[in-house]
Amino acid sequence: MAQLRIALAQVNSTVGDLDGNADRIAAWTRRAADAGAHLVAFPEMMLTGYPVEDLALRASFVAASRSALERLARRLADEGLGDLPVVTGHLDRPSVAAAGSGRPGGLPLNAAAWLHGGEVLVRSAKHHLPNYGVFDEYRIFVRGDRLPVVRVHGVDVATVICEDLWQDGGPVGVTNTAGAGLLLAINASPYERDKDDARLGLCAERAREAGCALAYVNMVGGQDELVFDGDSVIVGPDGNPLARAPRFAEHLLVADLALPAADPSTGPGRTPVDAQDGTTITIDRHVLSPGPLPAYPVLPQTVAEPLDDIAEVYAALVLGTRDYVRKNGFRSVVLGLSGGIDSALVATIASDAIGPENVHAVLLPSRYSSEGSVVDAEELVKRQGLNSRIVPIADMVEAFEKHLDLRGLAEENLQARIRANVWMALSNEHGHLVLTGGNKSELATGYSTLYGDSAGGFGPIKDVFKLTVWELARWRNAQAGTDGPLLHPFAHEPIPVAIIEKEPSAELRPGQRDRDTLPEYTVLDPVLTDYVERDMGRDALVAAGHDPALVERAIRLVDLAEYKRRQYPPGPKITPKNFGRDRRLPITNAWREK
Amino acid sequence: MAQLRIALAQVNSTVGDLDGNADRIAAWTRRAADAGAHLVAFPEMMLTGYPVEDLALRASFVAASRSALERLARRLADEGLGDLPVVTGHLDRPSVAAAGSGRPGGLPLNAAAWLHGGEVLVRSAKHHLPNYGVFDEYRIFVRGDRLPVVRVHGVDVATVICEDLWQDGGPVGVTNTAGAGLLLAINASPYERDKDDARLGLCAERAREAGCALAYVNMVGGQDELVFDGDSVIVGPDGNPLARAPRFAEHLLVADLALPAADPSTGPGRTPVDAQDGTTITIDRHVLSPGPLPAYPVLPQTVAEPLDDIAEVYAALVLGTRDYVRKNGFRSVVLGLSGGIDSALVATIASDAIGPENVHAVLLPSRYSSEGSVVDAEELVKRQGLNSRIVPIADMVEAFEKHLDLRGLAEENLQARIRANVWMALSNEHGHLVLTGGNKSELATGYSTLYGDSAGGFGPIKDVFKLTVWELARWRNAQAGTDGPLLHPFAHEPIPVAIIEKEPSAELRPGQRDRDTLPEYTVLDPVLTDYVERDMGRDALVAAGHDPALVERAIRLVDLAEYKRRQYPPGPKITPKNFGRDRRLPITNAWREK
Repeated sequence: MAQLRIALAQVNSTVGDLDGNADRIAAWTRRAADAGAHLVAFPEMMLTGYPVEDLALRASFVAASRSALERLARRLADEGLGDLPVVTGHLDRPSVAAAGSGRPGGLPLNAAAWLHGGEVLVRSAKHHLPNYGVFDEYRIFVRGDRLPVVRVHGVDVATVICEDLWQDGGPVGVTNTAGAGLLLAINASPYERDKDDARLGLCAERAREAGCALAYVNMVGGQDELVFDGDSVIVGPDGNPLARAPRFAEHLLVADLALPAADPSTGPGRTPVDAQDGTTITIDRHVLSPGPLPAYPVLPQTVAEPLDDIAEVYAALVLGTRDYVRKNGFRSVVLGLSGGIDSALVATIASDAIGPENVHAVLLPSRYSSEGSVVDAEELVKRQGLNSRIVPIADMVEAFEKHLDLRGLAEENLQARIRANVWMALSNEHGHLVLTGGNKSELATGYSTLYGDSAGGFGPIKDVFKLTVWELARWRNAQAGTDGPLLHPFAHEPIPVAIIEKEPSAELRPGQRDRDTLPEYTVLDPVLTDYVERDMGRDALVAAGHDPALVERAIRLVDLAEYKRRQYPPGPKITPKNFGRDRRLPITNAWREK
Repeated sequence: MAQLRIALAQVNSTVGDLDGNADRIAAWTRRAADAGAHLVAFPEMMLTGYPVEDLALRASFVAASRSALERLARRLADEGLGDLPVVTGHLDRPSVAAAGSGRPGGLPLNAAAWLHGGEVLVRSAKHHLPNYGVFDEYRIFVRGDRLPVVRVHGVDVATVICEDLWQDGGPVGVTNTAGAGLLLAINASPYERDKDDARLGLCAERAREAGCALAYVNMVGGQDELVFDGDSVIVGPDGNPLARAPRFAEHLLVADLALPAADPSTGPGRTPVDAQDGTTITIDRHVLSPGPLPAYPVLPQTVAEPLDDIAEVYAALVLGTRDYVRKNGFRSVVLGLSGGIDSALVATIASDAIGPENVHAVLLPSRYSSEGSVVDAEELVKRQGLNSRIVPIADMVEAFEKHLDLRGLAEENLQARIRANVWMALSNEHGHLVLTGGNKSELATGYSTLYGDSAGGFGPIKDVFKLTVWELARWRNAQAGTDGPLLHPFAHEPIPVAIIEKEPSAELRPGQRDRDTLPEYTVLDPVLTDYVERDMGRDALVAAGHDPALVERAIRLVDLAEYKRRQYPPGPKITPKNFGRDRRLPITNAWREK
């Protein structure tokens, strides 16, 4: 066996910020060197951020990524870090671009590079390109066909990229043939509720298949709708976890591994191998340092404790919100505070994300607002120390009604739109980002006003069903008194219990309650989950035990709300379908589940 | 040679309307039979409509399409049409679904079927799946691997689907080997300005390659952002057009062809062939009627005259708007009429699309509106016979300003949002669809107000640069006195010349002009075209002759407006990039062209 100290840099990159991302790679490489690592690995597309979407089709962006990579290699050497091999993701293209009709222009590659001695030692690219859910990689990348195997202190380290792990065949299947001592996978794998165990299970399975230890480094941080949760992990050849990073935080996971020494009779060179998926993969061997290191004392290994489900969801929402605000250049947010649970939870997430001193609440009572609503909202402002102002909307409503004779829904919507006008005006005047308070039950059923309560720049609870909204609020209150990178240190419960316990109402007409319009959330949320997230049809929904009348009603509501949802701001994705790019339906659609 | 009368049914289907689309197939098959056709062909995905997007991943929808196809075959026979072979597109799945990780669930197929004698005679599926521009077919379909060749009156007819024509290799490459006498391609190919010639050129090239005549049937009509323009065509083996349908209208193109008689020694059966693209295509031969028909007199052939460029664009906008209104169940529209050119053109398009009696204009003068604006808008209302009302917004602005101290942009935006509130209220109260008046120059540069002038349900000129807006207005005025399916018979010029000639202004502050904020459209539009539609980088833009300072400014404006554009309503796509699903960029994006 040969010893190797590997460092997995679970860091937060920003799409398009080539200079900032390069700085981050340099800084974390320095930290890895200080920790005595023999190899440091960064996530998929670290240098460009992920996902770049159609930016990959812009020749100037590909060229900029390529030259940033070369500059980074030289810079690391200039800063005395040239001896430490660095593996990082970046955007590349083939050195000779073959024409290919129907393939993305310029043949962009989702690539991995080994940097060493001031140079780019070896380049490879993702073989399996995901094109489902939020992923569009057939659109923007061409497939790689190489498995780099680099000998570091006598250990053969093979590198693959993200989806290569999730599909059979391809470079991972070839790793065993290549006789690698360590399989290193670089990833930008977004958080999804309950995905955690699937990821560890997959790493364990692929390690056994490759016949060697597997190191999995993942991105962390929010990017538009995606939240990368980190959770980098190293498993042994038997699939057991040896080291694991905490989730939702930047972290350098350093581990000492005892790995099989490489066969010294195999030298550098290229070997094409049948990849068992209809393609040929070329094993591309390089030798950096042929022999094992003298024995050295190992560091203690850490395996981070898993978070419980609801803590995980809350962390994803806070991190997603924080990074959206920050990466888009905002410092503060504004939101309407109604006295209801949704806006209360959004305010609390905002306080945790950027500090209550940067949160501006507006109370916008109308003639239909209950006194309790205003009192409860004011109590929340006081508990959290938010900035706040009250802007009654009665005069504005009257000014419209002087010219327009509105009734029913038109009158209700007008109030919601006037409120949105106020927070948009405050946003324009003071530069705050507007946070939108809609939850997933509302989005699914269209229970909201276009350009009204659905207006804004970011929707922190867009992917959270109403029942989970309550669960999160209670959970967050229970954390009062604790501290952490994603929790503001409120000494007392940040959300007044009255807000959690009151009956849901939009308060747009006298005595209005959600349940006058919608089924009870206890039966609605489960049918929405099955219809929206699992694409179940009417018969399947009924067979799963949902009430047939409820199924009809839910399907109709969901199908009719497609246009409204398309206009909704982005928000952190935590489920298989968040009404973002993971679910693409026509607006014009006469199909009704029968 | 053998004679064959072929009918290409260039018709308008609706996504999801399986029953309605089946009715349409039956009705047009009847028309083809009445015309004495020996074969009738319908567009790609005719039965389901196109594009179905993620509906293809819903098992209940696939099952419904399959059973609708079987029912349609029986119904045609029941109605005495069983002897006429019908080729139509539909959504299918393999009869035995093999598991495939990373492939779309249920393995949906973009399929073609031959219906005959009450049964589905043969099924095949699209081989080349486009995944660029607006297309997402890798996401939702798996690839077909069969070329059906069906003998009809002694002629071997091979069928392929749309993209199969556009890519090398695959079933079209196999057609020559198969010795087909006619290649029939069914399509749902959207309109794009200047694409016309490319399409005819492609058909000619593929006909020569296949060594036989080629019949190309295309869908017509609007579906969300896409406008299918028809333009169905038949070319001889030498590539010369023999018959061609008019564009932007439903049409049955009937043509008598003299085609090579099939080799009687080849009978039914399956032959696998190397498709020269790394795959194997199975030629699947069927015989419906082995021998040629006795000689019969041929019908006169028609080759429709091409439209000129600006007539084509105008037709696409009117058809796209008409179908969006109709297919979404609306009967009337409402729009704000400012007295400027954009809303004037949109009103005119609406009049042409659904009749002026169904168009409701609102004039919303503020303290900054010029007297000319109101007079010009009223003149347009009078000329076109629109419904109209005036709602002055000064009181509403004041009601907000009583509570909020707004300046500059915040104050300008407030006015635009109040106007949007009014038209949204009228929409809610009366059920009109809101038409949005933004042009592409505004969308590109973000020169609009979120939830203000950019609010609404459909944006007819979303993909039209400002210079083309003027061009279209002048062209439309020049058509006064003419009639047609896409032109309302206005006796006089529908747009007052004062509106076309005035200097562009948003009129949100005293003396405001577009050119205070934006470069002149004569230099702006060309740089936007190159940056947005051609993905050119800064250096390439400067090398193409654009002023470097203008390039910097345009890039910055475009990049910063990404979020605003995402919230914009759909509109007819007429260029390579209309800011819809054809251009997918991250919102959070630190990349700046350098």
